[in-house]
Amino acid sequence: MKQDMVENSEKLLAVLGTHIDSPVNPFRNERVMFSRGSGAYLFDYDGGNYIDLMNGKGSIILGHNDPHLNAALRSFLEQDREIVTGPSKPIVELAERIRKDSALPDAKVSFYATGTAACRAAVYAARDYSGKKIVLSSGYHGWDPMWRQQGALLEPNEDGVIEFYFIPELLERALTEHKDQVALVLFSPDYTYLSASTIERILGICRAHGVLVCCDDVKQGYRHRQGSSLEMVTAEKADMYVFSKGLSNGHRISCLVSTDEIMAETKEHTYTSYYQMLPILSSLETLKKMEAGKGYDLIRFYGHALTGNLKELFAQSALPIEVNGSSIFQLVFGDEKLEEAFYREAFNQGLILFEGDNQSLSLCMDKDVQVDMIRRFTNVTDVLSEQYKHLRGKEVTAEQTFRTAWNMIDGASDLLPYEKQLKLLDNLIGGG
Amino acid sequence: MKQDMVENSEKLLAVLGTHIDSPVNPFRNERVMFSRGSGAYLFDYDGGNYIDLMNGKGSIILGHNDPHLNAALRSFLEQDREIVTGPSKPIVELAERIRKDSALPDAKVSFYATGTAACRAAVYAARDYSGKKIVLSSGYHGWDPMWRQQGALLEPNEDGVIEFYFIPELLERALTEHKDQVALVLFSPDYTYLSASTIERILGICRAHGVLVCCDDVKQGYRHRQGSSLEMVTAEKADMYVFSKGLSNGHRISCLVSTDEIMAETKEHTYTSYYQMLPILSSLETLKKMEAGKGYDLIRFYGHALTGNLKELFAQSALPIEVNGSSIFQLVFGDEKLEEAFYREAFNQGLILFEGDNQSLSLCMDKDVQVDMIRRFTNVTDVLSEQYKHLRGKEVTAEQTFRTAWNMIDGASDLLPYEKQLKLLDNLIGGG
Repeated sequence: MKQDMVENSEKLLAVLGTHIDSPVNPFRNERVMFSRGSGAYLFDYDGGNYIDLMNGKGSIILGHNDPHLNAALRSFLEQDREIVTGPSKPIVELAERIRKDSALPDAKVSFYATGTAACRAAVYAARDYSGKKIVLSSGYHGWDPMWRQQGALLEPNEDGVIEFYFIPELLERALTEHKDQVALVLFSPDYTYLSASTIERILGICRAHGVLVCCDDVKQGYRHRQGSSLEMVTAEKADMYVFSKGLSNGHRISCLVSTDEIMAETKEHTYTSYYQMLPILSSLETLKKMEAGKGYDLIRFYGHALTGNLKELFAQSALPIEVNGSSIFQLVFGDEKLEEAFYREAFNQGLILFEGDNQSLSLCMDKDVQVDMIRRFTNVTDVLSEQYKHLRGKEVTAEQTFRTAWNMIDGASDLLPYEKQLKLLDNLIGGG
Repeated sequence: MKQDMVENSEKLLAVLGTHIDSPVNPFRNERVMFSRGSGAYLFDYDGGNYIDLMNGKGSIILGHNDPHLNAALRSFLEQDREIVTGPSKPIVELAERIRKDSALPDAKVSFYATGTAACRAAVYAARDYSGKKIVLSSGYHGWDPMWRQQGALLEPNEDGVIEFYFIPELLERALTEHKDQVALVLFSPDYTYLSASTIERILGICRAHGVLVCCDDVKQGYRHRQGSSLEMVTAEKADMYVFSKGLSNGHRISCLVSTDEIMAETKEHTYTSYYQMLPILSSLETLKKMEAGKGYDLIRFYGHALTGNLKELFAQSALPIEVNGSSIFQLVFGDEKLEEAFYREAFNQGLILFEGDNQSLSLCMDKDVQVDMIRRFTNVTDVLSEQYKHLRGKEVTAEQTFRTAWNMIDGASDLLPYEKQLKLLDNLIGGG
């Protein structure tokens, strides 16, 4: 069995052109291959089991192979209801639900297969609607090279995109320098490192300059509440929303929501599997289960329980490890060697973590899983607090947090004052 | 029931931002909603049944809800094998199969969710590899605005893309005018309107100029044979291939295949549902079934049987209707009113056709379905040959064929001499 796994993992590296962001077995320096998953647990081909806090980069919100969802999909297939040639009723039901949740007047919904595609669609629609080209962006919007920054601060890349790194002062400067040229401000809200007032300032500046705003809610939408995450912190609305991860428990779907007028250009968008029913049905079943069972409240509760426990655990160990966030959270380390050892030992104890990025909880991480998780994390700190006792009492610095947060939100966190942010930004943009 | 359907179709138009290319009920001027599909047949919510020759724009190659495929998916779900956090063995199996079929030395395979994304990936990889920007393109490569042509003939659009409309002379001119600036020639081969020698000339010109060639095999790949369609007509190879429709019987998957060196840039590409297993499994099961059951031969056989019958039928009716192609075929009409009436009556007789574009056959269109199809088509011509008897004996002109072919291949067909092609091109590019 071991040999088989190694062989397959080598094959994987040999044949796949794209394979980043999946868990690596640090002891064999190879990607882990999973045979099955159930709730909070994943199993490899050697019989090893893991509690998964990567959760498909936050797209597994119900848990792996949710029995209710899988039963619905199976029954759907049994009834021959998978259609690709044209629409079935559930697509109308899903679009109406999302439209209603958006609370935008006369909104339309365009579906795509990935968040990357929906974010591109937002840009095209806004450019067509406004007749302008420049896009001001903060946060991650997918793999497309249109988002790559190569030049100096506030310099547009060759696709006309300028990063403002969630810094309201930079947004203000960019809007002033490119007056009457900005089609859209697109940003991915974060609630771990950005305060409500920063998010409100960003929206307020956009309103003052009269530019369209799109909330890239791929990561946060339908995770904390039914609909956009923005409403947790502000009564201000965006003009456009992109949703994906919270919708469908890992199936390939995303959408762009905005008013009829702004969305005119998306009538040109089409692709072969547009009407394919399984992702639509997965979304409907996921949203229904989350809403019916108070899923959003439960995930928040599980997040606070876990991160509260972890904070206590790390405090007891006196190791420099910080826990930021709750249902989406990040670990920050005061020492690079400690960080590397932590992820290594976590894997050893059967914890799948999204290294350097955010961990995320699912609806099936209830009390039994919590107990099991804490047991595994305790094993990790037991090993490390002996091995790294020279670090006991050391603190995580604000700069370390800023740098680690950057990995998660692809921008500056507002923990630091503006001048300090700018200085660190210089290193991070220059250094990659 | 009727009322319900109308209401839902109106809702569909009201909420969906993107909804082109699905069948329209010409009598009520509304999109048809389908309740289920089985083999060659689709059923609406009123109990109406249709034989589907649109077949999800050619992506339904086994037939709707293929019992073998759906059983495999259900069993997979039952075994909790749907994973998104990381890879499972079937992704390796699929990548190896596609790599082997490509016969490219040391090829890598990058998976995407749509053909649009995989074609964009081909462009990025080629630009990164070559350090050049210009892309010469023929045929449809997805909804992305990067493919839109607005300027004059051979003028690059703002994304650096130049159309050559499958015309070897134009390709030669573009390569000469943009010497040392061309990253890639990307074209979607067609076997209805382009001769083998035209395809060989295109490949030969690329080789002579030493530029990379990508075969966009989204429509034709894994439809006529296992792997690229190019091998039907030439021993010449492309450097890169994009596959999609033939892979998975309608599930959301596509891939780019090329050598390790050329694919280096795709290591940056990632998206949330990258490892999602259902589309991978659907592909494996589809490919296995096609290969084991001589599926490619059977579809070719069914295509020739149907188009042969249709040619005879239209000849008997003496109406100006031409049938071009076989397992992918197109109807060409010698009169606009006749064309409109034909599609209207075809719907009335329970035939779903891809209006103006290509029809495509699936593996379940065996003798019983053939008999039923011909019966329905006969009903159509019976109605029309009475109504349009003034058109009897009229011929379809070469120009009509050229214009209709344009709708299907997004380029010029080589039925006409170069000078004539150029002249018609002028109208088509100007007139949209």
